[in-house]
Amino acid sequence: MDGIGRDRLALRERPIPVPGRHEVLVAVGAVALNHRDKMVIESGRGLPLSFPFTPGSDLAGRIVATGEGVERFAIGDRVISCFTPEWIDGLRAGTARTPVYRTLGGFFAGVLADYVVLPDHWLIAAPATLDDVQASTLPCAALTAWFALVERGRIRAGDTVLIRGTGGVALFALQFAKMHGATAILSCSPEKGDHARALGADQIIDRHRTDELDALYALTGDRGADHIVETVGGAHLGLSAQAAAVGGRIYQIGALDGFDLSSPAMPLMMKDVTIHGIATGHRRAFEDMVRAVERVRMEPVIDSRFPLSGLPDALDRLDTGPFGKIVIEMSDRTNQDGSI
Amino acid sequence: MDGIGRDRLALRERPIPVPGRHEVLVAVGAVALNHRDKMVIESGRGLPLSFPFTPGSDLAGRIVATGEGVERFAIGDRVISCFTPEWIDGLRAGTARTPVYRTLGGFFAGVLADYVVLPDHWLIAAPATLDDVQASTLPCAALTAWFALVERGRIRAGDTVLIRGTGGVALFALQFAKMHGATAILSCSPEKGDHARALGADQIIDRHRTDELDALYALTGDRGADHIVETVGGAHLGLSAQAAAVGGRIYQIGALDGFDLSSPAMPLMMKDVTIHGIATGHRRAFEDMVRAVERVRMEPVIDSRFPLSGLPDALDRLDTGPFGKIVIEMSDRTNQDGSI
Amino acid sequence: MDGIGRDRLALRERPIPVPGRHEVLVAVGAVALNHRDKMVIESGRGLPLSFPFTPGSDLAGRIVATGEGVERFAIGDRVISCFTPEWIDGLRAGTARTPVYRTLGGFFAGVLADYVVLPDHWLIAAPATLDDVQASTLPCAALTAWFALVERGRIRAGDTVLIRGTGGVALFALQFAKMHGATAILSCSPEKGDHARALGADQIIDRHRTDELDALYALTGDRGADHIVETVGGAHLGLSAQAAAVGGRIYQIGALDGFDLSSPAMPLMMKDVTIHGIATGHRRAFEDMVRAVERVRMEPVIDSRFPLSGLPDALDRLDTGPFGKIVIEMSDRTNQDGSI
Amino acid sequence: MDGIGRDRLALRERPIPVPGRHEVLVAVGAVALNHRDKMVIESGRGLPLSFPFTPGSDLAGRIVATGEGVERFAIGDRVISCFTPEWIDGLRAGTARTPVYRTLGGFFAGVLADYVVLPDHWLIAAPATLDDVQASTLPCAALTAWFALVERGRIRAGDTVLIRGTGGVALFALQFAKMHGATAILSCSPEKGDHARALGADQIIDRHRTDELDALYALTGDRGADHIVETVGGAHLGLSAQAAAVGGRIYQIGALDGFDLSSPAMPLMMKDVTIHGIATGHRRAFEDMVRAVERVRMEPVIDSRFPLSGLPDALDRLDTGPFGKIVIEMSDRTNQDGSI
Repeated sequence: MDGIGRDRLALRERPIPVPGRHEVLVAVGAVALNHRDKMVIESGRGLPLSFPFTPGSDLAGRIVATGEGVERFAIGDRVISCFTPEWIDGLRAGTARTPVYRTLGGFFAGVLADYVVLPDHWLIAAPATLDDVQASTLPCAALTAWFALVERGRIRAGDTVLIRGTGGVALFALQFAKMHGATAILSCSPEKGDHARALGADQIIDRHRTDELDALYALTGDRGADHIVETVGGAHLGLSAQAAAVGGRIYQIGALDGFDLSSPAMPLMMKDVTIHGIATGHRRAFEDMVRAVERVRMEPVIDSRFPLSGLPDALDRLDTGPFGKIVIEMSDRTNQDGSI
Repeated sequence: MDGIGRDRLALRERPIPVPGRHEVLVAVGAVALNHRDKMVIESGRGLPLSFPFTPGSDLAGRIVATGEGVERFAIGDRVISCFTPEWIDGLRAGTARTPVYRTLGGFFAGVLADYVVLPDHWLIAAPATLDDVQASTLPCAALTAWFALVERGRIRAGDTVLIRGTGGVALFALQFAKMHGATAILSCSPEKGDHARALGADQIIDRHRTDELDALYALTGDRGADHIVETVGGAHLGLSAQAAAVGGRIYQIGALDGFDLSSPAMPLMMKDVTIHGIATGHRRAFEDMVRAVERVRMEPVIDSRFPLSGLPDALDRLDTGPFGKIVIEMSDRTNQDGSI
Repeated sequence: MDGIGRDRLALRERPIPVPGRHEVLVAVGAVALNHRDKMVIESGRGLPLSFPFTPGSDLAGRIVATGEGVERFAIGDRVISCFTPEWIDGLRAGTARTPVYRTLGGFFAGVLADYVVLPDHWLIAAPATLDDVQASTLPCAALTAWFALVERGRIRAGDTVLIRGTGGVALFALQFAKMHGATAILSCSPEKGDHARALGADQIIDRHRTDELDALYALTGDRGADHIVETVGGAHLGLSAQAAAVGGRIYQIGALDGFDLSSPAMPLMMKDVTIHGIATGHRRAFEDMVRAVERVRMEPVIDSRFPLSGLPDALDRLDTGPFGKIVIEMSDRTNQDGSI
Repeated sequence: MDGIGRDRLALRERPIPVPGRHEVLVAVGAVALNHRDKMVIESGRGLPLSFPFTPGSDLAGRIVATGEGVERFAIGDRVISCFTPEWIDGLRAGTARTPVYRTLGGFFAGVLADYVVLPDHWLIAAPATLDDVQASTLPCAALTAWFALVERGRIRAGDTVLIRGTGGVALFALQFAKMHGATAILSCSPEKGDHARALGADQIIDRHRTDELDALYALTGDRGADHIVETVGGAHLGLSAQAAAVGGRIYQIGALDGFDLSSPAMPLMMKDVTIHGIATGHRRAFEDMVRAVERVRMEPVIDSRFPLSGLPDALDRLDTGPFGKIVIEMSDRTNQDGSI
C-alpha cells in the first residue's frame, strides 16, 4: 500500500459512533473491493479526500442502532449500501458542465470499517438468500451490469449479449443475461473459459484472436449482438459498433483501454445502434435487482476472501485477474465480546 | 457534371412506363436534391449502379395511372416518396455484418425523371398544405430530423436542442424543435444567424468560436442540451458529449468532419448520455411527420428552384452553403399537351 | 362553509413559525383551489385530519427564512409547492394493498395560510414569467395534465387529443397539447366553446350531443384520438375506448361521473389501446413542466381571484363551472408593515 | 359439428394448389386449435365467410413449392404461420371506427388442410427445437402471452406475474414469466395446481376462494403483482386493479366473464396502473419469441393430439378444460406416397 498508506486509513473507528436523526449504525460484515478502492487508497484518485480516510463502497452488514426518526429499518436488519446514495430513481443529479458523482468511499467517507453510521436511506435490505460476503458484492459491479442490461437495455429472452472480459461487471452481466433467458457470448482469455461456461456462458471467444468479429458473426449467423457490455473502451467501441445487431445497444461502462473512445460512424447509423453511457445506477433499480437475486437465488461469484488484516494482499489480488469479487470479511465482533 | 456525366442519366424516360401489379405511375412535380445525389451522379459513390441511371430520392408528384390491385392511392392523388422504402415500421432490416441501406436513387433507381413507376407502398400522401416543391423536401432531410428528435428522442416542450450548422437536417431539426415547444440553439456561421432566428432559433452560437462549449453552458445555466443534432461527426462527438445535459441524447447523423468518431468516455458515463445512430427513418414515422407538418402548417425552407435543365447549376449550388433545400421543379407536362 | 367550518381552519398562523433543519419559511402569495379543498373543508373527505386544519395544496410564495442546511433556496426565491411532495422521480411509493397518496392539504397540513414552514425539497422554483396568482395554479391541475400527456403519453406534433370538459386539468391539457403541436378537440358545453377556441382548441364537440363519437370520427377522418384526457370516468371510459385511435392512450384522471369505470373490451384489444391511471405526478416532471411553461411563456387561465376573506365565495365558485382556476390572493404583508 | 357442418369445410383441397408470385405451398404438419376455431366452425362468428371454408390459424409445416420471387424460404424449410399476417412491426392497421383484425381462419381462409398456399411473408421459420405439433401451438396463444409480457410489459427478473386460469395464453404466460426470471402466481382450479407447479408456477391461488386478493397480498407481502394476465375480463378487471402493484400493468386479453369490463377508478389512479389491450402481436415480436423458444429450449404444453378425422372430438375437448394446446396432426403424406 504505497501512496496513501495504511496509517492514513480509518478502518477501526473508536469510539463507536452514535447515529443521529435518520441515521443508523451498521456493524459491517463484509466489504467487496473494486479497482477504484485501490486507486483511492494508493493515490487518492484526484478526489478531495481528508485523512484519515475510510475507503470502500460495497458493504453488507447489520443494523445495530437506529437514530431518531428511522422508519426504514429496525435493529437486526441486514442491509447493503447504495454506491451513489443520493440517486433514488429516474434522472440523476448534475449539469452538463459538472456531472455529480458522489459515491461512498470517494466523495463520501467509505465503509471499510468495523462500524459505520449512514443515513438510513443510503441502505437497502440485503437479500435473504445471501450471506454478508456474497451480498457485499452487489452495490457497484452488479448494479452496473443490471442497470445496463435490464434498466436501460430491457434485455429479453432470445437476445444475444456480448460481454468483454471476466471482471466484476462482466460476470454479473453474464448471470443477469442468463437470468433473463438471453444467450451470453464472452470474449475472454481462454483459460477463463471453463469457469465462464460453468457460470452459464453459451459461447467463448478467445479475446486474443484477431478475428473476434468474425467469430461473433459466425456464432450469431451474422445477426450480431443485441447488447454489448463494453468494459474496455478506447478503440474497442468501434469493434462493438461492428458487432452490434440492427437496433443493438452498447453499454459504455469501462475504459481499461483508455478513456478516449473511437468508433466508425457508419455501423452506428446504418444499424440504428444506441450507445448508453453507464455509471452504476439508482436505488430503485438496486432494489429491483436485489429482489431478482433473491427470487432466482442467484449467487455472486467470490474469487477470494480476506480478513481486514489481509487488505494489502486483497488489493494486490485485484490486479491479478481474479474470477469473481474479492471481499474483505470483517471479524464477528458481536459473537466475540457479546456486544457491539 | 463530371464523373458519370449527363449522358449516363435517365431523366426523360420514354415511352412512359406502365405500372404493374401494386404499382403506380407518378408524374413527378419536383425532386429535392441531397448531397448524396451529387456524389452518385459524379462518382457512383461505390454503389452497384447500372447505367443510364436515374438519380434522386425525394419526389413529390401526382398519381397518373395505377396498376392492378392498387388500393392505397387513386389517380390524381398527390404523393411523396419514401427514402428507404422497404422500412415500414419498427426495426429496420439487416444484420451486424451487412447493414441494409436500400434507398431510392442509390440501391434502387431514383426519381429525378418526368415519370416514374413505383410500388404503391413506397409512397405516402403528400401534405395538402404544401405544393410539390415544398413537399419534395421531406423524404430524406426532414424525416431524418424528425426520426431523431421525435421518434427516438421524444422531444418535449422545455427541452433544449443544440443543432450544428444550417444544412437540410439542421433546419428541419430547428423547425421540429420549435413545433414541440423546445428551445433551439444553433451553432452556425454568424452570417446565417438572422435567417436562423427568423426561422425560430432562440440562440445562435458562432461556430467559429473556440469556446462553443462555454457559450452553451452560459446560455443554459450550465444545464446543457437535452438533444444534440450531431451533423459534423469526427471529434465533434466529444464536444457533444460535453455539451449534453444529464440524461441527454446525441443523434449521430452526419459526418462532415469525418466518419471516424471520437469522444471522451467520462461525460457519457457520468451524465447517462445516450448516442443514437440515425439514418433516416421508417414509413410510419414519415406519415406521423407529414400529419404534423400539415396540421401546424409548417413550411420547409427552399433555398432555390431549378428547372431540370438547370441540374448542373443546382448540383453546384449544393456546395455553396445554401440555406434550405435545393429543388428541381419539373415542367408541367400535363397542361402543355393536354395529357400525360 | 358547512361541515368543518371556518373556525376549524388555521389560516393565519401566529406566531410566525421558525424553519428547522432543511426547512424554509414561505410567505404565501397565492393559493389556487381545487375541488378537493372544498371537500376537505366541508367534510374532511374521510382523511385523518386534526383540527384546526390548514387546507390547500397549490402555493406560490417567497422564501423569507431558511433553516439550517438548506441549499436548494435562498431568501427571496420565489417558489411553488409540490402536491405529492415525497414523490421525487420514477416510481411512486405504496403497495398493492395500500396506495400512498400523501398530499399537501390532505395527509399533510396545507398551505392556505399567511406563512408556512415546509421542507425545502417540497418546493421548486416558480417560473420567472408568472406572477404568484398564475404560478399557484400549477402544482395539481397543470402537473396532472402534463404528467398524462407528456410524461406518460409522450405527446408529439400531429397527434390528436380529445379532452373532456373545461375544468382545470382539461384547460391545461389543451394548452400543453397546443404547446407540442398537437390538435386539440374539446368535448364541452357549447357556451364555453369560444373561450376554448381562443385558448387554442382546434375543434369543439358539443358534449350534450348524443353522437359525440360520430362527431369525433368525422373530425378525424375516422382515425380517432391518439390521447384522451378522461376526466369524467364512469361509463365514459367506454366512449373513450371507442374514440381511441389504434395505439391510442386514455388517461384516467377524473371521475365526475363516478368511480366505477366500465368499458367494452373489444375496442381496447383490437386497437392496442393503453389506459393510464393518473394521479398528479412527480417533482422531476413538475420541474420539466415549469421549465416548459417559462420558456414558451404559457399563461394559465385564471377564472377569478379572491382575498382570503372571500374564501367562502371562492369555494362556492368552484361549483359553478368556472373557466380557469380560482385563486386566493394573500394580502401583501411585507409591503404593509415593512417586515414579514 | 353443428352449425357450419363438416361438409362446409375445405380441408383436403384437391388438386394441390400452385403458388403464385411471392407465394409458397406448405404441406401442413399440424394445426393447433383455438376456441375461435370452434366458434367459426359452428356459427361463423359473424365473419363474412364464404363456403366451403378452411378454418384454423396455427400451422406448422414444410415448404414444398415456391412461387416466383420467393426469397424468404426454400423448399424443405419448416415454417409456422402468422396469426394476423399483415401486421409486420410497430403500429397495427385500422382506425378508431374500424379496427382491423384480419386473421387466418377468420377474415382470411385458414390452414386446417393438407396443403395451403400462402404469401411467403405470412410465415416465419419454425424453431428447430420443436416438432410440428409443438411448433403449431405458437402463432396465437404463445404470441399473445409474449406480446403482453415481453413486448408491451418488458417483464424482468424479480417481477411478480399474476395469471388467471390455465388456458393456452395462461400457460404460455407462465412459461415466459419463468423464462425471464419472474415469479409466477397462478389463480386456477386446485386440481390443476400440480401440473402448473411442474411447469414452474411458484404459487397457486385457488380461483374459487372468495379472498383471492388477500391471498395475493399475503404471497407478495402486500406488494402486489407487477403484471396481471387478465384472461377473464368482466368485473375481474377490478380485481386486477386491486391486485396490481404500484406501476403495475394489466393485460386485457380475454373475456371469459364477458366483454363488458368494469373496475374501480381509484386503484388505477393511486397506483399508476397501466392497462394494455392485447390481441396477439406482430411478426417481429413473433420472430423474437421463436428465437427465445429455440434458445432456451422451451417446450409448449400439449394437452392432446388428434388426427384430422378426430376434429369433432378435438373441438369437444376444447370445452372440457384442457391443460395445454389441442393439436390436429396431419397424416404424413410425403412418406405414404413418395411425393407430395
